[in-house]
Amino acid sequence: MDSAEAHRSKGSKRAEAVSGSDFLQLDVGQAPPGGRTEWLTDRIRAAIADGTLPVGSRLPAGRVLAAELGVSRGLVTEAYQRLADAGQVLGRGRAGTTVVAGPMPATVPAPVPSPMPAPVPAPVPRAPLSAAPTGPAAPTRPAAPTGQLGAIPSGGSHGPAGPFAPAVPSAPVVDALRGVPCRIDLSPGVPDLTAFPRTAWLQAERRVLAGLTAADFGYGNPQGTPALRAAVTGWLARNRGIRADPDEVVVVAGVAQALGLLAHVLRENGVRRVAVEDPGSLGARQQLEYGRLETVPVPVDGSGIDTAALRAGGAGAVLLTPAHQFPTGVVLDGERRRELLGWAAAGGLVIEDDYDAEHRYDRAPVPALRALFPEGVCYAGSVSKLLAPALRLGWLLVPPRLRDAVVAAKRYADLGNPILAQLVLARLMDSGELERHLRFVRRRHRRRRDAMLRAIAAHLPGARIHGAAAGLHLMVTFDGADFEDTALAAGALALGVKAHPLSWHRIRPGSPGLVLGYAAGPPGELEEGIALLGRALGRLR
Amino acid sequence: MDSAEAHRSKGSKRAEAVSGSDFLQLDVGQAPPGGRTEWLTDRIRAAIADGTLPVGSRLPAGRVLAAELGVSRGLVTEAYQRLADAGQVLGRGRAGTTVVAGPMPATVPAPVPSPMPAPVPAPVPRAPLSAAPTGPAAPTRPAAPTGQLGAIPSGGSHGPAGPFAPAVPSAPVVDALRGVPCRIDLSPGVPDLTAFPRTAWLQAERRVLAGLTAADFGYGNPQGTPALRAAVTGWLARNRGIRADPDEVVVVAGVAQALGLLAHVLRENGVRRVAVEDPGSLGARQQLEYGRLETVPVPVDGSGIDTAALRAGGAGAVLLTPAHQFPTGVVLDGERRRELLGWAAAGGLVIEDDYDAEHRYDRAPVPALRALFPEGVCYAGSVSKLLAPALRLGWLLVPPRLRDAVVAAKRYADLGNPILAQLVLARLMDSGELERHLRFVRRRHRRRRDAMLRAIAAHLPGARIHGAAAGLHLMVTFDGADFEDTALAAGALALGVKAHPLSWHRIRPGSPGLVLGYAAGPPGELEEGIALLGRALGRLR
Repeated sequence: MDSAEAHRSKGSKRAEAVSGSDFLQLDVGQAPPGGRTEWLTDRIRAAIADGTLPVGSRLPAGRVLAAELGVSRGLVTEAYQRLADAGQVLGRGRAGTTVVAGPMPATVPAPVPSPMPAPVPAPVPRAPLSAAPTGPAAPTRPAAPTGQLGAIPSGGSHGPAGPFAPAVPSAPVVDALRGVPCRIDLSPGVPDLTAFPRTAWLQAERRVLAGLTAADFGYGNPQGTPALRAAVTGWLARNRGIRADPDEVVVVAGVAQALGLLAHVLRENGVRRVAVEDPGSLGARQQLEYGRLETVPVPVDGSGIDTAALRAGGAGAVLLTPAHQFPTGVVLDGERRRELLGWAAAGGLVIEDDYDAEHRYDRAPVPALRALFPEGVCYAGSVSKLLAPALRLGWLLVPPRLRDAVVAAKRYADLGNPILAQLVLARLMDSGELERHLRFVRRRHRRRRDAMLRAIAAHLPGARIHGAAAGLHLMVTFDGADFEDTALAAGALALGVKAHPLSWHRIRPGSPGLVLGYAAGPPGELEEGIALLGRALGRLR
Repeated sequence: MDSAEAHRSKGSKRAEAVSGSDFLQLDVGQAPPGGRTEWLTDRIRAAIADGTLPVGSRLPAGRVLAAELGVSRGLVTEAYQRLADAGQVLGRGRAGTTVVAGPMPATVPAPVPSPMPAPVPAPVPRAPLSAAPTGPAAPTRPAAPTGQLGAIPSGGSHGPAGPFAPAVPSAPVVDALRGVPCRIDLSPGVPDLTAFPRTAWLQAERRVLAGLTAADFGYGNPQGTPALRAAVTGWLARNRGIRADPDEVVVVAGVAQALGLLAHVLRENGVRRVAVEDPGSLGARQQLEYGRLETVPVPVDGSGIDTAALRAGGAGAVLLTPAHQFPTGVVLDGERRRELLGWAAAGGLVIEDDYDAEHRYDRAPVPALRALFPEGVCYAGSVSKLLAPALRLGWLLVPPRLRDAVVAAKRYADLGNPILAQLVLARLMDSGELERHLRFVRRRHRRRRDAMLRAIAAHLPGARIHGAAAGLHLMVTFDGADFEDTALAAGALALGVKAHPLSWHRIRPGSPGLVLGYAAGPPGELEEGIALLGRALGRLR
């Protein structure tokens, strides 16, 4: 038995806290008893052999990987040493351990979508989601692409309750709420922005500016600069299990633009209806509808999107959030993944919005759908949750058959993203700076998540918590309650607290609830915000 | 008589070289004899009174303004002193002269579009354009929005002649040419990129990063950050004679995006056909066509776009380049301006692409159409020709009735431009750094323009030069010649020289020609490139 296993068998708190690493999607639970060192060595060796870790890649610091896996540092050191002995990696003290030799990446045959070896995720701790809040038999509101917001009853028609008022203007309601001043903002979707690595950014920009040629300042490749497309493939290989060629990557101005470009290309290809998750992101739905696509709601239950309903709906594409469903936090389970990819293999197009998959606290990483069936999955991600939304920078991976059309759409949208930020991000990804930043904010986000959970238990009686194992937000529902959650959100806003009513993100009716972001503010502020929400709740009951 | 006038009356070379200033569109030719100091003082006082120069604006250094106007420094110093004596400006040594007092900007009544007091520009020196190369009676090729490029005969179907080959792919031909390697690039549209102010940019970014709040890193205003919208209005007031409120400015990712957003909004408003100049920018036309608008060619002659033909064409909007028509370099004259604004007052929408108006060498500045009739003119500009295309940053001013729709289009396009570059540009505009840069590159561009003119005289017999008084490119035509200009461009590319055949930018046929950019390379390279073009020309004849 490894010494690390002895350590682990004591049931240390550390092992409980983290059950896997983003790096190569390692889950120590898959290691055979008594063979963890061998297992880790083999996994890294396989990643070098298949090109996931090309020559020049840096391995995580032993200390960091050990902490994430919940094993001893000695175990990781031993695995690295075995790889060094075989001439595959080179340890250079503080400069880290780098891959120095490996076969050229072979052409890997496309995985067969079904039967599929996706691990079935463990049940989500703390926040079990049993039945869907709205079953398939629930009455369906008539589709009203832009007008449906107007039908939401309000808790007040003037003053601070403005965004929740019945007469919502055509401007998106989320934007309207964003413009209202408040003391405590619990809107979802924003990471800890005080942690933005200003110094690292500026240093990288200095190097970028010093190294640019005059031609680099001219009109560039609308698909994105090759340096960033290569850095993104490295990032996705290390952190999301995705093998991709830089030529499959289109640099975009965030997931919002990715959806706009795809909407255009889908319409060009004759697709008029796109399935969306219900509940699901209001913003994403509006993005597709502005692109003149009809959205078809498909229910989400405790296993993720209802694939039978998807099939019955007859849409040509589906937009979904499989790693951490927005807003419920559900993980798409293995059975549903198999069914979904079978649907894609039969001609459907999957659009995977991997919006916050890097943020998780007490569950193993979930592999991206794109990793399993690149031919049928468009994959969109961005730095909005990693660094800052204001950078407007992300990536879109598309199947080969759509690539030229998507690049043309990007070309006519804006001739490509600005060059400086692309090259700065490439440096931060290649140097390991972005991974360091992610580890730092993840620790902070976890403490904030814990603070919010304690505050909800104390101040929101009757609230059921969903999806708290990962991400930057959680969802609460008040099952069986008969108030309108827009009234609750309006009451909270009157007390200076912003939160999204769950009904904003629903298409068909269901239990009232709230979507609560916990990443942006310090624990004390979160607790105060939840206490004020509790006061608003008390006034409704 | 002022001492400056005595100086000027000697016919100094300086006075010949520059005949006006971008600052307040000052043209010393409008000053009464013997009253230049009074005239300059009055013009600045009026600009302070009407809010063009609000409190806090900095006046140009006396030395700089004197050089631009071709007057003595003493004259400018005297004018500034009179304003200082009146308490309106304050000279602070090296810190410059700043407006310190002035009435609050009054609401200025909208100018009546007709009759219109636009000055008739002086005839363009060196490059008189007499009759249009293709008169209104010339036979019209059938409209073929994307396919017409394929009909251009080629000088070779493989190898370096690829972009000029008949089987042009659906990807824009200009992009295809951009991707071909070459030794000397005479493509139009790129300024001197070696002059990019890297140090100033990095210093501004350091200050921006130090000053940002955490909230600034979140989702921002899709219309653009208020600091940049205010800086753009100051820039346009000082340099383009445009009075605008920051609320009228939409920050965009360059003119290409501006046209894409407008195409969307025009279609939403029922406009299906947009008139374009012929010859005119191929790229701009493709941008509108990708936005599902039909483009209607309207001939350009020596006075600019043919407004009678515009009226007859029945389009709902027109895209044009009035200050320096692309590619002919013609300035829209006063009579045509009156007719155009009359057409706009009757319901037509003018889209003014002010793509390179800041660059001029031996003619007075031409006021923007937007300055004359804001209710009927959309105005688009960018830093692509001021700093670098790779920044993807520009501005769009729209009439109030279209503002909300354009902001919504921008919102759904990408949620707004990235914040850092917006704030850096605002600093460069507010500090005067951008004006300094413009003055620097303008001197360089003029020398390059002169080198190209000499080289054309030496190496391109029979070439007639058009539009060399301003901008970053000139046009040559070979009137009466019977070769295809695509064959000439292909022959030049085989010798390592890139240039645009004029026929790319024509819709109806006309004389063969070339569009030649002179700003990007040093004089020796330009001369070599023209000599090689001459060799390619000799092989055709």
